[in-house]
Amino acid sequence: MSYTAPVKDMLFNIEHLARIDQVAQLPGFEDAGLETAQAVLEECAKLNEGVVAPLNREGDLKPSFVKDGVVTTTPGFKDAYRQYAEGGWQGLQHPTDFGGQGLPKTIGSACGEMLNSANLSFALCPLLTDGAIEALLTAGSDAQKDTYLPKLISGEWTGTMNLTEPQAGSDLAAVRTRAEPQPDGTYKIFGTKIYITYGEHDMADNIVHLVLARVVGAPEGVKGISLFVVPKFLVNADGSLGARNDVHCVSIEHKLGIKASPTAVLQYGDHGGAIGTLVGQENRGLEYMFIMMNAARYAVGVQGIAISERAYQQAVQYARDRVQSRPVDGSLNTAAPIIHHPDVKRMLMTMRAATEGCRAMASVAAAAYDAAHHHPDAEVRKQNQAFYEFLVPLVKGYSTEMSLEVTSLGVQVHGGMGFIEETGAAQHYRDAKILTIYEGTTAIQANDLVGRKTARDGGTVAKAIAGQVRTTEAELARSGSDNARAVAKRLTAAREAFEQAVDFIAANTKANPNAAFAGSVPYLMLAGNLMAGWQLARALLVAEDLSAKGQDKAFMQAKITTARFYADHILSRAPGVAASIVEGAEGVTAMALEAF
Amino acid sequence: MSYTAPVKDMLFNIEHLARIDQVAQLPGFEDAGLETAQAVLEECAKLNEGVVAPLNREGDLKPSFVKDGVVTTTPGFKDAYRQYAEGGWQGLQHPTDFGGQGLPKTIGSACGEMLNSANLSFALCPLLTDGAIEALLTAGSDAQKDTYLPKLISGEWTGTMNLTEPQAGSDLAAVRTRAEPQPDGTYKIFGTKIYITYGEHDMADNIVHLVLARVVGAPEGVKGISLFVVPKFLVNADGSLGARNDVHCVSIEHKLGIKASPTAVLQYGDHGGAIGTLVGQENRGLEYMFIMMNAARYAVGVQGIAISERAYQQAVQYARDRVQSRPVDGSLNTAAPIIHHPDVKRMLMTMRAATEGCRAMASVAAAAYDAAHHHPDAEVRKQNQAFYEFLVPLVKGYSTEMSLEVTSLGVQVHGGMGFIEETGAAQHYRDAKILTIYEGTTAIQANDLVGRKTARDGGTVAKAIAGQVRTTEAELARSGSDNARAVAKRLTAAREAFEQAVDFIAANTKANPNAAFAGSVPYLMLAGNLMAGWQLARALLVAEDLSAKGQDKAFMQAKITTARFYADHILSRAPGVAASIVEGAEGVTAMALEAF
Repeated sequence: MSYTAPVKDMLFNIEHLARIDQVAQLPGFEDAGLETAQAVLEECAKLNEGVVAPLNREGDLKPSFVKDGVVTTTPGFKDAYRQYAEGGWQGLQHPTDFGGQGLPKTIGSACGEMLNSANLSFALCPLLTDGAIEALLTAGSDAQKDTYLPKLISGEWTGTMNLTEPQAGSDLAAVRTRAEPQPDGTYKIFGTKIYITYGEHDMADNIVHLVLARVVGAPEGVKGISLFVVPKFLVNADGSLGARNDVHCVSIEHKLGIKASPTAVLQYGDHGGAIGTLVGQENRGLEYMFIMMNAARYAVGVQGIAISERAYQQAVQYARDRVQSRPVDGSLNTAAPIIHHPDVKRMLMTMRAATEGCRAMASVAAAAYDAAHHHPDAEVRKQNQAFYEFLVPLVKGYSTEMSLEVTSLGVQVHGGMGFIEETGAAQHYRDAKILTIYEGTTAIQANDLVGRKTARDGGTVAKAIAGQVRTTEAELARSGSDNARAVAKRLTAAREAFEQAVDFIAANTKANPNAAFAGSVPYLMLAGNLMAGWQLARALLVAEDLSAKGQDKAFMQAKITTARFYADHILSRAPGVAASIVEGAEGVTAMALEAF
Repeated sequence: MSYTAPVKDMLFNIEHLARIDQVAQLPGFEDAGLETAQAVLEECAKLNEGVVAPLNREGDLKPSFVKDGVVTTTPGFKDAYRQYAEGGWQGLQHPTDFGGQGLPKTIGSACGEMLNSANLSFALCPLLTDGAIEALLTAGSDAQKDTYLPKLISGEWTGTMNLTEPQAGSDLAAVRTRAEPQPDGTYKIFGTKIYITYGEHDMADNIVHLVLARVVGAPEGVKGISLFVVPKFLVNADGSLGARNDVHCVSIEHKLGIKASPTAVLQYGDHGGAIGTLVGQENRGLEYMFIMMNAARYAVGVQGIAISERAYQQAVQYARDRVQSRPVDGSLNTAAPIIHHPDVKRMLMTMRAATEGCRAMASVAAAAYDAAHHHPDAEVRKQNQAFYEFLVPLVKGYSTEMSLEVTSLGVQVHGGMGFIEETGAAQHYRDAKILTIYEGTTAIQANDLVGRKTARDGGTVAKAIAGQVRTTEAELARSGSDNARAVAKRLTAAREAFEQAVDFIAANTKANPNAAFAGSVPYLMLAGNLMAGWQLARALLVAEDLSAKGQDKAFMQAKITTARFYADHILSRAPGVAASIVEGAEGVTAMALEAF
């Protein structure tokens, strides 16, 4: 099943919702206007449509495998990765100082979506490399930066994040991997890390592991965790590869999905100790790791959008081809392609609206990130940072939760064929399920949203965002079209539901934490729903305006219809969710543990 | 992962919601009171817990395979099936005239759930045999009944339903399999049938295929379809097996789930014609098939409940064992089993409430079936039949759609471990996905609900059911407890939402079919949600009463909490769904086909 990058929709968001014209006014992004975005996206589409996407099914059929500690990836992956690296795609958003292209996230995010639509398993390797780059940029020494960043940014080497251990999943306080200081200033690392994505593979010359470990004698809990860089091959002073380090892949997991992506168990120090260097200061590892995790969380949210888009395209294609039954309105006397049937349309519209809504949300978040990092005015940076940070758990949590619904509908549109593996729809359903789990489960995102993003400031940022939604409601009222009025009705109800939930969370997180956290995931879903619906409402206003000016009427009409559908079929869930949050804690907490 | 049959919950439903005391007053069911139910369920639990359940993971790892037309099932299946047959379980609900036990569906349904919880793939074989038995009981000749029924009911032979062809899935009008009348009164059958569950296997001596085909010269469309019985081995006059018939398995599918269940492509007549006999009259095949499909649809709904129960039990077990992070309320200074965390509780409660709600709905539907078939008063039979028929698409559609949510949460509770196949949680997620597709997709169930069950009588039956819900609301008001009041609030809102939807469907199905069918699946979900929530509300009233009398207080309190949770977290979705149905058609139908 082929993939066509939704370049037009991406550029619509970039131009009209993320406002690339404003991004291009930021220092350093002067050349990153709409034309650049278009050129980059079109080039990116070519690589992903032509080279990466065709390997997706192949990866499911011929997953990575390990033999004697050596991982062999799916046939074709190595060559595709070479093309990806040579095209400079790994460095897209990274600093020009180290060989990157220094483009804004507003553009880079769309490219990330394409890569993940093309091949979720493949895309994980660059995604983790991005995380390693972020960590080193933030806290690495000059020597570490010089040693690793050029090679990581060029894609010659790849990166990993080593957090999880058998006893330490969501709870990183339980990390036990040990780091012993050596006289030469290095550390010897000992321990077992699990679920290490691309922890071992054959696509690059070296693998740069970023590893959480405890220096001997460090405090218990999260305050005693440090971050280390541990390369697969040690790097000589001249930059050439030295000895094989003592980190070895002992197995890779047999998983429900993303089978081509090798998920490694890595053993550190079984032969004397893996040599690593400390990143930043001792015991601040979690702080640095959170920087790369925040980047990775956003990226995983984009994965949710990406797999949704791929599943949608495949379902549309099938619905156009598969002929079955007459239309219910009697408009045809013979059996019709199933895309004529209202329920099939409803499923496709649900898939489309969820995907476009989440894409719009992610695009706006990316622009906020760019402003937060590049705007000359500190106050503007701060506001954008707060907005971005509020959105990260929503981009991650909501987009991925919705991808479960979307990929399930993708199978459903195919009927019996969807359940047959060779159709390919089932792969998306299987692949998507990891997205609500890794880089922090939906519950972990929701804890972040409740604790750090809502309760900490008493709901101030959340309420300010609600105020912006209100502005859009007023604009919809001014438009006055049937569609705008219908959308405004749902948007108002959802925004009011959100405000009600924010009040509840702000009032209860300290006083009654069990009640607040009983509604944490519903609160995340409500907030994400509102953010996506809001952006589609903004999109509707733009589309009405441009359509009236005669610009690309078919596209604009489709955008209007999608926004309308989202409002009536997805945003309409919001008030019910608020009820669960505000009045539902009793039902969650009352059950005696032994009664489960 | 082991399975423990929820006998107590089943008996609670059977006694208090399905009212087995009333069932036992029906002619023929005099011995089928609560004591019988308990004895049967306990015996059934033993077989399923001890013999069938342990083969579930085995079936996923070692699926059925075909070689030279011969299907070999998972090691252990053949022996387990022998025990199932020898225990008389195949005949549980079938007439004593042919060797069955003649028990009511009220009891049989619970046994069916256990078998499916134990092993969905295994259970499909008896499920299909039940369908074949129903068809022959309804329309078979005396000779056909004598030839086939004793062997099917004893489990010596198994049955199949042959509907689907490559071009004829949901649309049976497109069936092309050909039946040529022979001078001796038999027919020769030619054609290809796909997706034939247990179409070939090694667990029984003979396989009795019920096959839809067109007699040469029959009318086009659904009015020209006849039903045939085509055994794998012809049966001699003395009942012994004769020649191998010309029906052969050419392949079995590689599927997302239920891998142990062989899904066969059957080729009829490649070597001169498969010999079959007509069931009932020519061209009435679809009518007979619908009888067995209705039984099968109910049974598939029970499969949804069954897989939900299994996923729930596994998730609870993991949540008790897995230690990770401190409780948010500071009640423990060390990391706790994750069942202490509010969001894990919320997930488990969602799984539990959905499962218990659907089980209660199915139990009540079963009692209505028994009354519809056995009550001496024709008017009572008719009312019960109408109620049962309204519930069948809900039991099928709602229970299976909810099983997708439940099994997804089952993986989620496990975190990263859930994505690893050896954990077993992912298997339930994969297995469940077929349930919303086969025996009529959710959309097909919704068409049935909209067209035949709601619009046809102008919503009369639906409104009468809403009236019964109102009675429960009044009873909740009389109880006056906090829980009863909370549940009443949601029940009233959901019932009003349902009535609104019924009015819309009744008004629009003819006048504006695209609008009505655009909301068909949401209408099904709303109706199913209301029915399940209503039954849990009734359960709450019973539990409050019995708890006050000191009867099994822990169980009763858990039931009350579950009902409360269902109301606040699941039933609370209903008003939003009504909005989608009543006001959402524009968003579904407005998109131009070429714009998808």
